[in-house]
Amino acid sequence: MGLTHFNEEGRARMVDVSDKPKTQRVARAAGKVLMRPDTLELVRTGGVRKGDVLTVAQVAGIMAAKRCWELVPMCHPVQLTGVDVSFAYEEDGIAFTATTRCCGETGVEMEALTAASVAGLTIYDMCKAHQRDMAITEVRLLEKDGGKSGHFVRAE
Amino acid sequence: MGLTHFNEEGRARMVDVSDKPKTQRVARAAGKVLMRPDTLELVRTGGVRKGDVLTVAQVAGIMAAKRCWELVPMCHPVQLTGVDVSFAYEEDGIAFTATTRCCGETGVEMEALTAASVAGLTIYDMCKAHQRDMAITEVRLLEKDGGKSGHFVRAE
Amino acid sequence: MGLTHFNEEGRARMVDVSDKPKTQRVARAAGKVLMRPDTLELVRTGGVRKGDVLTVAQVAGIMAAKRCWELVPMCHPVQLTGVDVSFAYEEDGIAFTATTRCCGETGVEMEALTAASVAGLTIYDMCKAHQRDMAITEVRLLEKDGGKSGHFVRAE
Amino acid sequence: MGLTHFNEEGRARMVDVSDKPKTQRVARAAGKVLMRPDTLELVRTGGVRKGDVLTVAQVAGIMAAKRCWELVPMCHPVQLTGVDVSFAYEEDGIAFTATTRCCGETGVEMEALTAASVAGLTIYDMCKAHQRDMAITEVRLLEKDGGKSGHFVRAE
Amino acid sequence: MGLTHFNEEGRARMVDVSDKPKTQRVARAAGKVLMRPDTLELVRTGGVRKGDVLTVAQVAGIMAAKRCWELVPMCHPVQLTGVDVSFAYEEDGIAFTATTRCCGETGVEMEALTAASVAGLTIYDMCKAHQRDMAITEVRLLEKDGGKSGHFVRAE
Amino acid sequence: MGLTHFNEEGRARMVDVSDKPKTQRVARAAGKVLMRPDTLELVRTGGVRKGDVLTVAQVAGIMAAKRCWELVPMCHPVQLTGVDVSFAYEEDGIAFTATTRCCGETGVEMEALTAASVAGLTIYDMCKAHQRDMAITEVRLLEKDGGKSGHFVRAE
Repeated sequence: MGLTHFNEEGRARMVDVSDKPKTQRVARAAGKVLMRPDTLELVRTGGVRKGDVLTVAQVAGIMAAKRCWELVPMCHPVQLTGVDVSFAYEEDGIAFTATTRCCGETGVEMEALTAASVAGLTIYDMCKAHQRDMAITEVRLLEKDGGKSGHFVRAE
Repeated sequence: MGLTHFNEEGRARMVDVSDKPKTQRVARAAGKVLMRPDTLELVRTGGVRKGDVLTVAQVAGIMAAKRCWELVPMCHPVQLTGVDVSFAYEEDGIAFTATTRCCGETGVEMEALTAASVAGLTIYDMCKAHQRDMAITEVRLLEKDGGKSGHFVRAE
Repeated sequence: MGLTHFNEEGRARMVDVSDKPKTQRVARAAGKVLMRPDTLELVRTGGVRKGDVLTVAQVAGIMAAKRCWELVPMCHPVQLTGVDVSFAYEEDGIAFTATTRCCGETGVEMEALTAASVAGLTIYDMCKAHQRDMAITEVRLLEKDGGKSGHFVRAE
Repeated sequence: MGLTHFNEEGRARMVDVSDKPKTQRVARAAGKVLMRPDTLELVRTGGVRKGDVLTVAQVAGIMAAKRCWELVPMCHPVQLTGVDVSFAYEEDGIAFTATTRCCGETGVEMEALTAASVAGLTIYDMCKAHQRDMAITEVRLLEKDGGKSGHFVRAE
Repeated sequence: MGLTHFNEEGRARMVDVSDKPKTQRVARAAGKVLMRPDTLELVRTGGVRKGDVLTVAQVAGIMAAKRCWELVPMCHPVQLTGVDVSFAYEEDGIAFTATTRCCGETGVEMEALTAASVAGLTIYDMCKAHQRDMAITEVRLLEKDGGKSGHFVRAE
Repeated sequence: MGLTHFNEEGRARMVDVSDKPKTQRVARAAGKVLMRPDTLELVRTGGVRKGDVLTVAQVAGIMAAKRCWELVPMCHPVQLTGVDVSFAYEEDGIAFTATTRCCGETGVEMEALTAASVAGLTIYDMCKAHQRDMAITEVRLLEKDGGKSGHFVRAE
């Protein structure tokens, strides 16, 4: 019958980073939940029935950053040394930014993007009884530093 | 000193749904990863070093749907009876759609949105060595059915 | 050599509840973190460097309730239909109460006790830079209802 | 460019079981860790440095059964109503059996097989300082009942 | 509308410890489950229906220590290098002690307190069919060492 | 009444490895799912209804390797730096091999064995509608390197 070795055909692997040095890493990601002005006002004034939207979203984002490697299959496990999630009210919704740090062989951009995404999902969840057609948009890496690829800043 | 009961001031709770009947629920969410044509071509032709992008993203999205309640703090635990994640190549990136089903007291839109978000994050992760300025965008609920709020279809 | 069947000697099992009917269940547990007046004052005035103590503890307690069966080995998995965690400032510390609900074959007292314990642990974590000799105390079931054993109210 | 819908090409899905009735389900799986007589003797006499092998393996198997759907990607989440793991000393190793129960739309054979596998892995872990060439073997479904496919008993 | 940056107002963050050196850390926490003499006797004599109480509680405590950072939102992920949980029968209940070790930027007292709490919860769970009004009490840090804050021993 | 300290009687502990140096570690484990020729043919030709069997099994194995320490109670948490799972069609079934790497105080053989086991369980799950009497067999360590115990190669 003969052998067919799958991974010689390009299937998925968690790539070997054993030979990379550990360096200080930082990444910053952002995104926005688009919502109607009345929904935004409800968040600002604490009128959402499920609770204080941004505080819950902040805790959710921080906790999700730590579990990124459980969710994104080919991500390496990482011991984050810091996570910060912040929010800003904008005219058409709520912007969120997540910053992650570690000292390791791999970058922490997936951790920042995961924190941002889950913060966005949580805002959606807290507000969905008021508005169903919100959208989570522009989830993107703003900046990363550390490692061989050097400093990256997104052109915006 | 006097008592100050926090939850009388509107803090977070996982709202009581004990009195709601169990009904068949379905939700469909979608989004897109914006990428350059050369990155898209790499995905289509199987040239991404980490492996087959869409297959890994599909598994990741399905697995994340089941863990939505671990990530989104005020979500109720839900026993999904079906999850499907599919993809379509578009000119400016890869669109993804997630469909979730259950029979329960609460809807499954957060599960669909979580599946969609994690599918998008996984596409980003698999391709990020090729392009850092991709963005996950337009993550939104397309449709939901079941429960008191009835059938919702997003106006697009 | 002869067989020695372990479970005939009384080892651990997750007991079979297949034959029990599903009924509405509710449980209420409580506890207290003992702290110095200056630490308590710091919590009340929002002076703790790591953030808003009670909000983080509330989210942590709610999330932990949902994962009780992952932590306590012989607990049955349960689909909670409601979780509420609240706090009260007392002279010698911060009291916390957790209420859990589900419709199921087993009670939800472990879920309430887990929510209470993790809320207490989180208060400790948020304040430990200020005081190391706090204690989490009197974690106990206040009340439970539903199921064959009927209504229980702790004599206090 | 045209759309290519992945799931029309047969990719993975968690199949929709919404229309299946909930019935009582039970499954029994088994396997064996092959080991040298001196390793087996060490387990029997409590001489393993890491602790009481079978008790730890039993708890591990029970806990893993509850998390099967987190590990096996296309498994439906299931609320187990009972899990039992037992062991028997045999001449060439330690046999393990896991029984799982639930009332649901899908069977619980994967839960039983997961409990059995993790019990086996834990026995290996506890004993590996003494013997590295043990093997976990014959992990298989012995019996299942409930659901449309009816009663299955493995021919042994 | 103007921006309001949440984290400038003192919300929660997982504080940045990137600049702290890695040092050997150890922490020891303890607590007690208060129970009636007849319940205690049942534990001692192995008469509890759900299984061997202290062994299950020991495994549960060790496993929970490793997952502390998933439960306590602002805890840093930590790679524990050792966990030990032990018990002592006392006149009014069962005392438990947990010791945790790692080499890292942050202490491991939360890991020890989590192990202790979950050991206590598990004892409660195993015995609750016999007695509902047990209480988990005096969960506290006994000692910690390593890091800038030096050696701490609780005055008892 | 007198104290009885459990761990002086040899109960379970996660052994202290604080004093061991961090070294590069690699482990390779393997196993096989025995199946009928017609089931094997269905896998090879992509005819399995649940999706592409080996791709899903590969992702599942990689993800499980990272969570080994959550499943196997006395395993130390490990930050894997690489995981690879591959498959080969054989006459009587599908063989699977898992390779794991890290730089740490402890070996990664349990991680490789866990990846292999979960890959096997996933193959079983994907094919079980076609054949119920498959078996997962010969799950074993092929090779390990790194650490005080040196290079191990299984005699086959």
